[in-house]
Formats: sequence, C-alpha cells, structure tokens
Amino acid sequence: MNNYKMVIAYDGTRYNGWQKQGNTNKTIQGKMEAILEKMTGEQIEIHGSGRTDAGVHALGQVANAKLNTDKTPEQIQDYINEYLPKDIVICSIEKVSMRFHSRLNAVRKTYCYRIHLSPVRNVFERSYVWDYGKPLDIERMKQAAQYLLGEHDFLPFCDQKNMKKSSVRTVERIDWKVTEKECKIFFCGNGFLYHMVRKIVGMLVKIGEGNAEPEEIRTILETGNRELTAGIAPAEGLCLMNVEY
Amino acid sequence: MNNYKMVIAYDGTRYNGWQKQGNTNKTIQGKMEAILEKMTGEQIEIHGSGRTDAGVHALGQVANAKLNTDKTPEQIQDYINEYLPKDIVICSIEKVSMRFHSRLNAVRKTYCYRIHLSPVRNVFERSYVWDYGKPLDIERMKQAAQYLLGEHDFLPFCDQKNMKKSSVRTVERIDWKVTEKECKIFFCGNGFLYHMVRKIVGMLVKIGEGNAEPEEIRTILETGNRELTAGIAPAEGLCLMNVEY
Repeated sequence: MNNYKMVIAYDGTRYNGWQKQGNTNKTIQGKMEAILEKMTGEQIEIHGSGRTDAGVHALGQVANAKLNTDKTPEQIQDYINEYLPKDIVICSIEKVSMRFHSRLNAVRKTYCYRIHLSPVRNVFERSYVWDYGKPLDIERMKQAAQYLLGEHDFLPFCDQKNMKKSSVRTVERIDWKVTEKECKIFFCGNGFLYHMVRKIVGMLVKIGEGNAEPEEIRTILETGNRELTAGIAPAEGLCLMNVEY
Repeated sequence: MNNYKMVIAYDGTRYNGWQKQGNTNKTIQGKMEAILEKMTGEQIEIHGSGRTDAGVHALGQVANAKLNTDKTPEQIQDYINEYLPKDIVICSIEKVSMRFHSRLNAVRKTYCYRIHLSPVRNVFERSYVWDYGKPLDIERMKQAAQYLLGEHDFLPFCDQKNMKKSSVRTVERIDWKVTEKECKIFFCGNGFLYHMVRKIVGMLVKIGEGNAEPEEIRTILETGNRELTAGIAPAEGLCLMNVEY
C-alpha cells in the first residue's frame, strides 16, 4: 500500500464540483474514485485539497489516495487518464509519505478569477470567464483589494453561516493581470472559505462599477457585517491554480 | 443600402462549417443570415472570405453583406451578437465600398494549426488542438516546410480532385511557435485549397514521426503525385486567424 499525490486539472463546466455527492457521475471525486476502484478492485477514498464548487475549474487541484497496486506512478497516471473523460486529466502523480494529506497539509493556495470586460465575448474561452462585458474602474478595485491583505476573519465573505471552525484566514497576495479585454485577479492565501473568492470578486466588481466605496471592504472585515457585501460572482470565472505544501 | 464588412470569430466545434447547407442551423453562414433577415425583414446573402470545414475555428473570418437598415454599424453588431449563440461573435463591423467582396478581394490569409504534443491532454483547450500526445521531430518538420514556400501547384494537397480553376497558390510564410507541450504552425499565403492546410499538416507530422523524408514534399509538388501525401490532420486543430485585403 502506498500513498499517491496527484495534481489534477479539470474543466468544471459539466460537474457538480469536486466533492462526491449522491450522483457520483457528476463530481470529479466520484469520477476519480470509480476509476481507482476499477484499477485496484478495492474501495478507494481520494482526498482533495478542498472542494471546488459546481462549475469551478482547476489547473492544479491536489488529491491523495492510498492504493494497493504493482503499477508505477506513470502507469497509474496513464491508466486513470485513459478512463477519465476529456475534461479531466492527471497532470502528475508521485509516491509520498503515508502521512501526507492533501487537505490537512496544504499551506498555500492560489485561485485565479477572470472577468471578461469587452462587449465582444470571448468565444473560445467563454466557459472560463465571467462574461461581464463592460469596463470596470480597475484602480478602485485594486485600492479596495488592499484591505483584504493580511489576516482577517473572512466570515462575512463566507456563505456557510454557521462555521464551527475558525473563519480567520490570511490573504498573502492579490495580483492583477489586466488588459483592455480582461481582468485576471490572482488570490494567494493560506486557505479560503466557502464561496469566499467569488463573494470577494462580487464586492470588488461592485466597487469597480462605482456602486460601493473601496473602504467598505475594511468596514465589512472590521464589523463582520455581511449585509454590506455584494452578490456572488459566477462560478465559471474561477480556477484553482495550485496548492502548495 | 450599404455594404458591411464584418470580422467574425467562432468556435467551430458544433457546426458543419461556414457554408450554408440543407440544415442552416448548423452552419455559421446560416446562423448569420437568419439573424440579418430578422433584422432587415429581407432575404440576405452573406459572403464569407472562404469556407471553413466542419469543426474548424475562426478568430478572424471576414464576411460582407448588403443591408437596408437605419442602424449604425455598432447597433448592427450589438443586434447580431445578442441573437448569436455564445460560440459565434461579430468582433467588428464597418461600412465599406459597395464593390468590396470578402472572397474576391482577399489578398492574404493566415491559418494556425495547433498540435498538442504532451501526453497530458490540455483539458481547457481540448476543442482547439489536435490531441496528438507524443513528441515530434520539429526540426525535420521545419526543414520539410521550406519546400512549401513560394508559388506551387498545390493540387496534390487538395481534396477536391477535379478543380476547374487554377490550383496554383503562393505560401508566403510558415511560422512556428513550439513549446514542449504544443506546436503551433502559422501558414500565411494568398489562398488555400480545400483541405490544403490539414493535408500539409498531416504530411509534416508524418515527416516529424520519421515516417517520411522532408524531401518528399518537394517530390509531391514537382510530380503532383498525391499518392505520396499523408492523411488529413483533424479539423479541431485548425483556426482561420485573419484575412487581409
């Protein structure tokens, strides 16, 4: 028995997110486990570094699973990739310590959120961007984003209202790649709450529209008042870029 | 009545190509004409710079149509884009001389063909590449491509065997963007025959695999012997990048 760490990429469009639910056919975890069970003949549990919501993508989701097999990591990768649908792929796989756990040992995650600004939609990447279609005041958004940096209780930006565990997280960096057509925002931190990135992006866009002040982010974090937050940005613009250990 | 030139982008995956056929719902031309007819109340013919095959994409297809309308070009663009499906978009539109014809006046076209070389498939752009999945000897392919440059009778690389018109074309440039994961080949010339780019790519790949010699391209062009050519590369890797006038 060995513990394997896998880096997984997926186009989340057709799925109900990472985490297995009733219909396993519609989740990435469900697809992966079905193939690993076929390969090993045993019931397998695969642990993701965290859930991604329905419609959210991943370039570098990390998961681990303990497997009884004679295959080399490369053979396991080939086997899984052969059976996976075309919108999911194992990018790499390696043997790791039996104590490695992709969720518990994660120290840093980076998400990217893409907002398409041009009224001319991006036909080729239409499933990977928020098709917003209008300009935004990016400077205002950048100014607002400063208030998110550092350690805060992000509970007002979390859609799971009754958190049993701490909702304090540290946002380490927020990077921007902006062109006339598209605004990409990279969020790097030690962890993100349920819907946190999408709620933050919704608020930043409201600020970029001139419908809220940059300082409202500070007020929300200081007071914990979720009534001040904006709507949630669409799932399709979000991608889990990588997980660090 | 004015003549309008439009630049159109489309993800060709779901379509039977540009040119209208029986079921107009499945072609780009059919989709466009249906919307223009709704807009003007008249029967409209839209002329593309050339057909693209079923499954082939375009970043800059050019078409023109003569329209009776009070709308400004921007209003026409907004109207069409509102009714077009998400995988087709009018990038720009302008009034041009009544004598402008997108096919007859085209002087140069650029196509890009993308070959995915890595065994790890590209889940996000899987519809826009040939998922070849193995390395190729790119230097051999570049050497072979030299023989294509200039004016030649490309009939052996054309799948329409009984051409009534000349099959002589000039390939002006072939440019390469190659990474470990992907090989992009840009073909720029004054015109391309039916299936010509895909037949050429098929031959270049055969040469890159070591299954044909670079010099065979020269032999094919000199002798016109289509028996020496390889199979046709898949449609999904091909994209019409732009048309110059």
